[in-house]
Amino acid sequence: MSHAPLPSELLDALRAAVGAEHVRVDAASLDAYGADALKRGHPPDAVVSPEGADQVSAVVKLCSAYRVPFVPRGGGTGYTGGSVPVRGGIVISLERMNRILEIDEENLIAVVEPNVVNGDLQAAVEKVGLFYPPDPASLKTSVIGGNVAECAGGPRAFKYGTTKQYVLGLQAVLPNGDIIRTGGKVVKNVVGYDLTHLLVGSEGTLAIITRIVLRLVPKPPAQATLRATFRTIEEAARAVNNVIRARVVPAALELIDRDSLEAVASYLNGERLAPPGTGALLLLEVDGIAAAVAEEAARCEQACHDAGATEILRAQNDAEREQLWRVRRELSFSLRTITPIKFNHDVVVPKGRIPQLFALVARLKRDYRLRIPSFGHAGDGNIHVNIMVTPNDEDEMRRAHEAERLLFEGVVALEGSISGEHGIGFMKAKYLPIELDAPTIDAMKRIKRAFDPDGLLNPGKIFPEG
Amino acid sequence: MSHAPLPSELLDALRAAVGAEHVRVDAASLDAYGADALKRGHPPDAVVSPEGADQVSAVVKLCSAYRVPFVPRGGGTGYTGGSVPVRGGIVISLERMNRILEIDEENLIAVVEPNVVNGDLQAAVEKVGLFYPPDPASLKTSVIGGNVAECAGGPRAFKYGTTKQYVLGLQAVLPNGDIIRTGGKVVKNVVGYDLTHLLVGSEGTLAIITRIVLRLVPKPPAQATLRATFRTIEEAARAVNNVIRARVVPAALELIDRDSLEAVASYLNGERLAPPGTGALLLLEVDGIAAAVAEEAARCEQACHDAGATEILRAQNDAEREQLWRVRRELSFSLRTITPIKFNHDVVVPKGRIPQLFALVARLKRDYRLRIPSFGHAGDGNIHVNIMVTPNDEDEMRRAHEAERLLFEGVVALEGSISGEHGIGFMKAKYLPIELDAPTIDAMKRIKRAFDPDGLLNPGKIFPEG
Repeated sequence: MSHAPLPSELLDALRAAVGAEHVRVDAASLDAYGADALKRGHPPDAVVSPEGADQVSAVVKLCSAYRVPFVPRGGGTGYTGGSVPVRGGIVISLERMNRILEIDEENLIAVVEPNVVNGDLQAAVEKVGLFYPPDPASLKTSVIGGNVAECAGGPRAFKYGTTKQYVLGLQAVLPNGDIIRTGGKVVKNVVGYDLTHLLVGSEGTLAIITRIVLRLVPKPPAQATLRATFRTIEEAARAVNNVIRARVVPAALELIDRDSLEAVASYLNGERLAPPGTGALLLLEVDGIAAAVAEEAARCEQACHDAGATEILRAQNDAEREQLWRVRRELSFSLRTITPIKFNHDVVVPKGRIPQLFALVARLKRDYRLRIPSFGHAGDGNIHVNIMVTPNDEDEMRRAHEAERLLFEGVVALEGSISGEHGIGFMKAKYLPIELDAPTIDAMKRIKRAFDPDGLLNPGKIFPEG
Repeated sequence: MSHAPLPSELLDALRAAVGAEHVRVDAASLDAYGADALKRGHPPDAVVSPEGADQVSAVVKLCSAYRVPFVPRGGGTGYTGGSVPVRGGIVISLERMNRILEIDEENLIAVVEPNVVNGDLQAAVEKVGLFYPPDPASLKTSVIGGNVAECAGGPRAFKYGTTKQYVLGLQAVLPNGDIIRTGGKVVKNVVGYDLTHLLVGSEGTLAIITRIVLRLVPKPPAQATLRATFRTIEEAARAVNNVIRARVVPAALELIDRDSLEAVASYLNGERLAPPGTGALLLLEVDGIAAAVAEEAARCEQACHDAGATEILRAQNDAEREQLWRVRRELSFSLRTITPIKFNHDVVVPKGRIPQLFALVARLKRDYRLRIPSFGHAGDGNIHVNIMVTPNDEDEMRRAHEAERLLFEGVVALEGSISGEHGIGFMKAKYLPIELDAPTIDAMKRIKRAFDPDGLLNPGKIFPEG
């Protein structure tokens, strides 16, 4: 899409607001800030890096005055283009706002700026015996502000919940430049509407988050890690069901399918991380007080045994634990060797319907001649379905897009959701009506218009065009 | 406030929509449906009881067409007048929509209509080994729809979270009659804005909830109940802090002050439920797997001992457990014998600041010559501060209102909130600006207008007049 260049008076005013060195228009910056993990980007016209809510507000007011689109950006690790300026304009990078402001041990609270890296926060709170559970795979590079904007999940979400369960309060800048403060430092608060949780997961389309108050929990003192292998997905799903029926809520319950295991074996030059003939692998982790962990681990072993596991391993120490998790950690790298890109979908079904989801994927593989390694968070029913594609193979791309639509329709038919972690961004906007009916989309759009009547904040996201 | 009587054509149309027997205009009904637990009511002009979302939609459309206010009503147990039709119009009572539609053991989900009584749901899910944690004191009479509209809490909220943590999806009727479906049967869902959690706690001012999908958890197999007494609130608060530092998260952590204990003793004709000289009493409950419960209970005992507890009791069986909880259960009845009504406030502070909150209450008692027994959920910092008043004592009422304002200002100065459980309703609307700044209130009002441009749904609530 073409658009007019930025007026020089706007650039001057932006420089005056945040400092000249924090307004970039060089080609390298525009290129770097135009894409996210999706790799399909669009360069902005300028990159502005304000510090603090007042500077963010000043930048937003200038953009509004000049009617220039503006897009907030955290770590740029999203999979659906949430931070990509598809209509050009200004990327507001929050990279200078990256401090942990407070860790309050007495009240189990942390206060952070948006660009604190998730893994850095986890390390800081664990040092004092506390725990911040949300653990997206990108935790070494993604930032809390982006995690909040997307409502990031991760393996621990089944037991501990996703990001939304940990956000107590926000400071945020609205499209009109107003600075609002939602929620606060208390875990119970029913004063007015829950703007906090309206902003969580709103993908940077309603406000720019400038400060976050997070709830922490005590760090679980003990954990046990198990790996169980099965001949089929159905048996693994039965094991998951047995675990639930044994009333155990594991901290992680990861399921990996045969195609994914084969990709890892190929990536590791034939080194297998599971017995031959394995059709599905489960990684289970339970945590808590040592005595409870021992009992829950035993129940998990029994649940897997009863479902017909071919092998059950239990880590005896940290090194063995790392070895069991290795297959999961090698997955992303392994898939990259199959094809250059993947349609990385994060669909969700009620967990009892995981076998139906895998049956659907098997049909799509066969009918559309595609490679679709799949793995994910079985406890939540949140499965990463990776449709592997070669961009210059037009026929494969067409088949992949057809399969994608059928996948989404099938998931919704199973009472699931087309996205459990990555959000909609611009990549999935056209599929929104598969899951949401017209009155519900209309209600969301009315909220968008109430906050952003001119449609300048992160345009082109979530809602289908027209 | 006076208002025109309902047009007879509207009444006829309502009768046609829901059945003549479900449209009531007799004085007894109007009186009964005009008040909630606050006891300060205003009669509606009619009470309509639709069944199902389609009938609710039809009623809403009729009210909109005739520009008559309409107010949803669940159990009518609220403390802030949320279901009171302060501007007259039609009460939409959801009493006929009271079925548990589904308990899905495999996926840990329940689907209910709005008027299922909380305690009935708890009993039904516990029968199959599952657990619905939110436990407001009103659980025998309050209903899930009202719990969702107010985001009800209860003692277990410290460990298990409030109602919002359990709502996965909603069906609801908007003021324009649209029926929307938010969220669904999966615990992870990031598709569009989180309308579910915008509606939770919106006090029936944005939509009328007609169906609720709830998350369940496994029922904890074991629990331990402890009671510890202290000479002072400061010592009890230190015990709470010690429990947190011991990294235990109790399922209940209730604090009761001296004035409350004296009210109970007086109510029970001098029978004391705590040793003489007790200035503060803590009830602690831990739950989970038996081995973990034993260890956590021991840590709680140590935490109380280290804080200077005068006595620590631990229930050995259910009868003893009931006896320990008795003081808490007698509290509401006991307070009623002091004065006819109470300003029943549910303020919250970061839990480390509970001693400052009680110091503030002590100043208010002294400076304004008031009885203010206080007790509540210490783990959350959520304390029920009961300003006891005799309605026909004008001077006491004036002093009580002054103390009320200072209480709210003091709580906000401690980075707390003026309401953790009961909401704002019409009783606290004028105090909203103590906690929320103008831009934040303005953002909330924009959402209200986006959903309800004519202001017909539950008017006069949450926001201060003018």
